[in-house]
Amino acid sequence: MEYIKNPMMIETKSFEIIQGIIDEIRPEYKFKNELEEKIIKRAIHTTADFEYLDILKISEGVVENIISALKENATIYTDTNMALSGINKRRLDALGCKYKCFVSDEKVADFAKQKGITRSMAAVEVAAKEEGKKIFVLGNAPTALYKVIEMHNSKELNVEAVVGVPVGFVGAAESKDELEKTDIPYIISKGRKGGSNLAAAIINAILYSM
Amino acid sequence: MEYIKNPMMIETKSFEIIQGIIDEIRPEYKFKNELEEKIIKRAIHTTADFEYLDILKISEGVVENIISALKENATIYTDTNMALSGINKRRLDALGCKYKCFVSDEKVADFAKQKGITRSMAAVEVAAKEEGKKIFVLGNAPTALYKVIEMHNSKELNVEAVVGVPVGFVGAAESKDELEKTDIPYIISKGRKGGSNLAAAIINAILYSM
Repeated sequence: MEYIKNPMMIETKSFEIIQGIIDEIRPEYKFKNELEEKIIKRAIHTTADFEYLDILKISEGVVENIISALKENATIYTDTNMALSGINKRRLDALGCKYKCFVSDEKVADFAKQKGITRSMAAVEVAAKEEGKKIFVLGNAPTALYKVIEMHNSKELNVEAVVGVPVGFVGAAESKDELEKTDIPYIISKGRKGGSNLAAAIINAILYSM
Repeated sequence: MEYIKNPMMIETKSFEIIQGIIDEIRPEYKFKNELEEKIIKRAIHTTADFEYLDILKISEGVVENIISALKENATIYTDTNMALSGINKRRLDALGCKYKCFVSDEKVADFAKQKGITRSMAAVEVAAKEEGKKIFVLGNAPTALYKVIEMHNSKELNVEAVVGVPVGFVGAAESKDELEKTDIPYIISKGRKGGSNLAAAIINAILYSM
């Protein structure tokens, strides 16, 4: 069996193939700018799903917001350990950024049980109490996204930006629609699709562009 | 904002919605058996992608193989930390199973560099030397899957089953086609789609059925 074994070659070739497929299936498709192109192509690279050409929505200025927050040692809060493990932590370390997922924290679990809310929601409440700039990277839990919106609206939470790409059938699409209505800078996937892998890929695309 | 906050209700409701959509878009669709139904529905639950109705291929007897290996304290080897972090480790602990991802191990990285192969391939070589029953759960690296096939063919590796769902544009589809040609029991996603999230979801579906 012959196959490419060099990781850099695999990545370069992958992005060439992605562009080739876009040229074929969507010859009229235009990326708004280079940063959006990088994010959308990395989303496709991670999922092999060209629907992301249409369903990723990137609010005006959000990427610049995220980059400037990362340069000011922002903390990234994820809703799953899976998203956390997919993020390029070497890059974040180099920037002096922290990255946290509180969802499997014992105290958060107890707190969630007491209040009858999801651990994902409790994790947002805990994050809100921390110092420093905050970026939420949510690929799984609509309830976490709703909680971010609620606490932002009630001025209990300062948030620089949200990568809000929960996947699923109950509340995922609706939670992302709600985020769009706020003044929080956002990157979302419209509809049901999304995921922890996608959430990590989006942040990584931004890190690789810096 | 009103939304469901009870995790069990969210999950139950999700699977009802998934069945409803299948009834609507594919009224003739039949699952081969209950185990396949659970795996395919969990794949859809994780990705919101109904293409998995058609592209997941589950070889005869593989689920039974995986279940019996898990009952005999098999070790699960993943190709990414992301897949590892998505797997239900509480269930695996209860079964006395181990779970490992060697890809970010320092020694594996050095070994890969020396040999000019991917870390994913080097990780398979390291796993092959370990004792006990082995299940590979690969959601990312075609090179890892090719390496498993090579070492199986050359009788350097004993493997009970492979969940082989690498995603991507270079080698992913081809590596899965190769796996189908072997006598290794497999679960694969045909074509480019797949992912670490999917790999974890498939193993979790099997764990939840036990």
